[in-house]
Amino acid sequence: MSGSTFGLLFRVTNFGESHGPAIGCVIDGCPPGLALSEADIQPDLDRRRPGTSRHVTQRNEPDAVEILSGVYEGRTTGAPICLLIRNTDQRSKDYGNILQTFRPGHADYTYWHKYGIRDPRGGGRSSARLTAPMVAAGAVAKKWLREHHGTEFRGCMTQLGEIEIPFESWEHVPNNPFFAPNASIVPQLEAYMDGLRKSGDSVGARIYVEARGMPVGLGEPLFDKLDAEVAYAMMGINAVKGVEIGAGFASVAQKGTQHGDELTPEGFVSNNAGGVLGGISTGQDLTVSIAIKPTSSIRTPRHSIDIEGRPTMVETHGRHDPCVGIRATPIAEAMLALVVMDHALRHRAQCGDVRVSTPRIPAARR
Amino acid sequence: MSGSTFGLLFRVTNFGESHGPAIGCVIDGCPPGLALSEADIQPDLDRRRPGTSRHVTQRNEPDAVEILSGVYEGRTTGAPICLLIRNTDQRSKDYGNILQTFRPGHADYTYWHKYGIRDPRGGGRSSARLTAPMVAAGAVAKKWLREHHGTEFRGCMTQLGEIEIPFESWEHVPNNPFFAPNASIVPQLEAYMDGLRKSGDSVGARIYVEARGMPVGLGEPLFDKLDAEVAYAMMGINAVKGVEIGAGFASVAQKGTQHGDELTPEGFVSNNAGGVLGGISTGQDLTVSIAIKPTSSIRTPRHSIDIEGRPTMVETHGRHDPCVGIRATPIAEAMLALVVMDHALRHRAQCGDVRVSTPRIPAARR
Amino acid sequence: MSGSTFGLLFRVTNFGESHGPAIGCVIDGCPPGLALSEADIQPDLDRRRPGTSRHVTQRNEPDAVEILSGVYEGRTTGAPICLLIRNTDQRSKDYGNILQTFRPGHADYTYWHKYGIRDPRGGGRSSARLTAPMVAAGAVAKKWLREHHGTEFRGCMTQLGEIEIPFESWEHVPNNPFFAPNASIVPQLEAYMDGLRKSGDSVGARIYVEARGMPVGLGEPLFDKLDAEVAYAMMGINAVKGVEIGAGFASVAQKGTQHGDELTPEGFVSNNAGGVLGGISTGQDLTVSIAIKPTSSIRTPRHSIDIEGRPTMVETHGRHDPCVGIRATPIAEAMLALVVMDHALRHRAQCGDVRVSTPRIPAARR
Amino acid sequence: MSGSTFGLLFRVTNFGESHGPAIGCVIDGCPPGLALSEADIQPDLDRRRPGTSRHVTQRNEPDAVEILSGVYEGRTTGAPICLLIRNTDQRSKDYGNILQTFRPGHADYTYWHKYGIRDPRGGGRSSARLTAPMVAAGAVAKKWLREHHGTEFRGCMTQLGEIEIPFESWEHVPNNPFFAPNASIVPQLEAYMDGLRKSGDSVGARIYVEARGMPVGLGEPLFDKLDAEVAYAMMGINAVKGVEIGAGFASVAQKGTQHGDELTPEGFVSNNAGGVLGGISTGQDLTVSIAIKPTSSIRTPRHSIDIEGRPTMVETHGRHDPCVGIRATPIAEAMLALVVMDHALRHRAQCGDVRVSTPRIPAARR
Repeated sequence: MSGSTFGLLFRVTNFGESHGPAIGCVIDGCPPGLALSEADIQPDLDRRRPGTSRHVTQRNEPDAVEILSGVYEGRTTGAPICLLIRNTDQRSKDYGNILQTFRPGHADYTYWHKYGIRDPRGGGRSSARLTAPMVAAGAVAKKWLREHHGTEFRGCMTQLGEIEIPFESWEHVPNNPFFAPNASIVPQLEAYMDGLRKSGDSVGARIYVEARGMPVGLGEPLFDKLDAEVAYAMMGINAVKGVEIGAGFASVAQKGTQHGDELTPEGFVSNNAGGVLGGISTGQDLTVSIAIKPTSSIRTPRHSIDIEGRPTMVETHGRHDPCVGIRATPIAEAMLALVVMDHALRHRAQCGDVRVSTPRIPAARR
Repeated sequence: MSGSTFGLLFRVTNFGESHGPAIGCVIDGCPPGLALSEADIQPDLDRRRPGTSRHVTQRNEPDAVEILSGVYEGRTTGAPICLLIRNTDQRSKDYGNILQTFRPGHADYTYWHKYGIRDPRGGGRSSARLTAPMVAAGAVAKKWLREHHGTEFRGCMTQLGEIEIPFESWEHVPNNPFFAPNASIVPQLEAYMDGLRKSGDSVGARIYVEARGMPVGLGEPLFDKLDAEVAYAMMGINAVKGVEIGAGFASVAQKGTQHGDELTPEGFVSNNAGGVLGGISTGQDLTVSIAIKPTSSIRTPRHSIDIEGRPTMVETHGRHDPCVGIRATPIAEAMLALVVMDHALRHRAQCGDVRVSTPRIPAARR
Repeated sequence: MSGSTFGLLFRVTNFGESHGPAIGCVIDGCPPGLALSEADIQPDLDRRRPGTSRHVTQRNEPDAVEILSGVYEGRTTGAPICLLIRNTDQRSKDYGNILQTFRPGHADYTYWHKYGIRDPRGGGRSSARLTAPMVAAGAVAKKWLREHHGTEFRGCMTQLGEIEIPFESWEHVPNNPFFAPNASIVPQLEAYMDGLRKSGDSVGARIYVEARGMPVGLGEPLFDKLDAEVAYAMMGINAVKGVEIGAGFASVAQKGTQHGDELTPEGFVSNNAGGVLGGISTGQDLTVSIAIKPTSSIRTPRHSIDIEGRPTMVETHGRHDPCVGIRATPIAEAMLALVVMDHALRHRAQCGDVRVSTPRIPAARR
Repeated sequence: MSGSTFGLLFRVTNFGESHGPAIGCVIDGCPPGLALSEADIQPDLDRRRPGTSRHVTQRNEPDAVEILSGVYEGRTTGAPICLLIRNTDQRSKDYGNILQTFRPGHADYTYWHKYGIRDPRGGGRSSARLTAPMVAAGAVAKKWLREHHGTEFRGCMTQLGEIEIPFESWEHVPNNPFFAPNASIVPQLEAYMDGLRKSGDSVGARIYVEARGMPVGLGEPLFDKLDAEVAYAMMGINAVKGVEIGAGFASVAQKGTQHGDELTPEGFVSNNAGGVLGGISTGQDLTVSIAIKPTSSIRTPRHSIDIEGRPTMVETHGRHDPCVGIRATPIAEAMLALVVMDHALRHRAQCGDVRVSTPRIPAARR
């Protein structure tokens, strides 16, 4: 995995810039024969889309995906699949005052020192908009995994700022803009967000994603452990500052008698491992949580320096999310799907002939 | 990065098995001209070594490293560097009763379902012993980074089980077997461990590592962000279930006005970002915490199934750590050094010509 | 390098299909600060363009390149550079009769057996049209290498079918459609081609390419030897069946006293090595020849089988080159430039600090 | 593929130096369940071994391979397989006079300019001895391919210096030190070699290798075409200056009606393609020829310069082959097997589900 390419066998190369004519990706290594059309991809893009509620960036991008290659008569051919998403709503002038300054919490300072050149237009390659092509690619992976292994992906928000969101039901998730698994708390979340918008500040979020119906055996010790690559994929999402799997940081205070998931013929008894042991999937649900930092682009003036090193104040205007975590759930699902997909192919490569007599045991019931 | 090879330009291929004649690694891509001898590597291996206190695995491995290639007249030649560590103390007979069963929390079940073959000897390729070659390779990276960039790596334990370890001073770290930055708490930790050994249980740990004197500009969006690769390296360490950078999971509840690190000509004001912004190093300290789960090998009998799927009890004997986190600090330092080294070379490849007029500003004082 | 991505550090991902709306590539890892515009790329595309003479495919594609990303205010930013070339002249109906048959010499049979699906439109991903984005990427590499190392690339045709083309001068090369370094032989070549077009047959070609002003030290033993990667790049060009470097196959019959290039303070005495020794560039010219097979698409009916395995005759119509080698020279130059570029960055990564006191000696005069 | 690692899924990392204590390799990604012991590997190493005739380097290395890891109870486990070959016969003092000079035709000059350091001992990492671990790894690949696909590899010498070796029968190949498929010409070859040894000169060779019983569908356009990777593997062998597949350079003068291999239900009619079309294997024999240059180490004094750039004469003593091509056949077979193995796994990864109704047609009879 390097630079703009994600994955070893199911390879996704991301291209384009936030304020250029288009963004997209090339998927290399997709198995042939998969039925695929734009209709299989668009729903996940819509879930991610800006402009769908007052709580997210007020850009009005349809984010309509087009399949440029790799599909013939409705089925993947094995050739690279190029997915394109045209940018329609770009307001360059909103970025005028940042040309010579470095916005705290943004990549401005680091890009300048790395490349010696700064492209200030809308975050360039550090923009969260570039997650759209990954969501599109993730939809392709999800479809193949569903059809070949019965694997399903879903996620929700478990915390918004200081507000913990108790889990009630997955049914609530599609019905509110927060991907919250809880209907009654939504008004509180909305009021919280309205307050943030007024004050010009921002807040973080905690997202949970899982894969059910996981194949067993995915992941390759030593260094391509499934959990290591999940961590890599998640931490690579804009604004993520922490990743945990299974019991995660709670494992620290657990005893071995409590953490180790026992096995019975009826199934695993628990899933503190989060679906991965020794870097390989157990067939239990793959459970992941991520920590998303508060948006760096806020209207509150912040201390910074300019390009000559002199002190200055920075205040960003334009369109911003008070919480970028609002849209993170579909992105995290997509990245999880891409990792699982890549490993499904890798496992087939090395172990396609393996036949094991011991029956798999079911995942723990939750 | 695939299977047994870590890194893109500073590539480390790990080989050998825990109960074979030797373990080691091949380092490919090390810059030539670095003064290098076994004496530069052995100290870090000794810090990691089993048998140095009663709290860790009672194997008595000297872990003496030998440089087999890649060095001529005391300096690296640019050729691959092969480091070998011979295994001397192997007690195969301690593993007799696990031949046909799957130990909860271990990779037995997953290896069986992936490969259709199980090598029960001492954990095979899932053994923590295989971290020794990585510590050796990390020492080479540390040396080059120290000499070329003034970068230094260090770490400590910040929590053992439920016991939080308040930070007093880095000076305490080498003086106790826990890598605790606190002298007064050590008796409590030792008593805790003795209790666990008696009860046959185990506990987790939380480790903190940092890199100071970091170069600015390391990391490559989109997918080779420095923090993503740190997460990958850390989660890939045996028994790690969580990784966080900078403010980590605490970012969730922070406000943007609080999280975003302001810049002044005298330096950054804070370091919630943990040294990475937009996936690129800022020159601030790279600060990472990891969660290590409790040891899976415990003497308490646990429910499991055997190779035919019938219920059974598993109880492991032999040599085990009540807390594998005790030895994790040098390992985490080494993996951090390997990531930083790899990115230092990548940055030099793409941006070796870049000259930036804006002065770097100092890291925040802590 | 995998599937659609070429290179390790200067990575080019090719996308699109011959009969889709567009083709293009993403260049990842280009150093920042390079002045770049479409005008730097278009000339090489024009040299390759179909429709520029009666001897090549009668498609009328302007092959106009657009830079979609990675450039700001006329200079590369270090971000991925997306180059797009829209397809305008596609005649799908010319391919009607091959839907169920396998054309001898084409990839039809192999694609069917590999993917279980066939996309018959214009060769799909096996079409020579997909070399256009590589020529575009090669132009970027050429520019950087020229500005940073003074490296120049050029090539010519040295044989057309049975007709050997004696070398007269590089000045002739741009002035005839064959890239022949010989003006007087051109009428003979044209008559030969007219004859082939009438008879409906095709013929092969031999192309020579070289890089002058090569940096010394490019290439990494064991497996990333410069010549190995040159061979990989060249054999990967459509229709190439042989690659040789320096004295090539003539080396077989040479003596060591004759082949080994002696060194004097005034320069190398000869260049049988072709610019590479031990897999690393010597600073002498990198000299490569390739063998291109006759076009598979010919009007002469050929024996084949259909999709059910029954015997049939295949006759292709539509637009074809009687010799695909006519357009190969710019493609071979581009691939050579991409390999040299990739290795220039790799060398800088590992050996950016190396300073050697021994002066380089000049290349042999030819 | 980078530096010391060959292959994407069946990855071989080569380590060690010619005059160090040992050389070897790590094979990563080998499918589990393959029966494997040293006895499966040693024969190919013996075929390559120095000291088996008066025509090759007079080192007396037993080249005994040891399997250090990756095998349990006689079968591969899926874990990395470490193969070790100890060096026993090293005569460092034979290299005394080259410390400060650059030997024409050797990598001395290039290594110096690349790394700024020279390790003069026996060629270091440019030594042909490092092909031994690749031959060992190739033996593992050959076994798996034979058992899973019925693929067989063999090769022979087709030209020694100016002497063309007419093909009589494969039966002769194991019975002479030249791997010549012709018994009657052997005395002439031996006399020729004796003459060269007396004169202190050397000569090149042309080797032919083939794979029969090839699976169809191996190779991945655009850039992982099977033939491109074969070219890469072959050109990467020490001393190779040219590679051709199928009709190779003879394709240049062929007509399309002659070159294109027709298909009938009884089989392909010819195999000018050499087993690859559009970069993918057709199931026909994979046929490859390579050109090996004359040995650079000869006793005839040669003009060169020393480390300060002053003119000097170089004359090498010690143990050398008048023709390194004598031992190249097993090496070329091994590299071919490694490429085919890697692609067999890649094909299984992407296309493991593909079922094609059209029967494969047999390879052309030769």
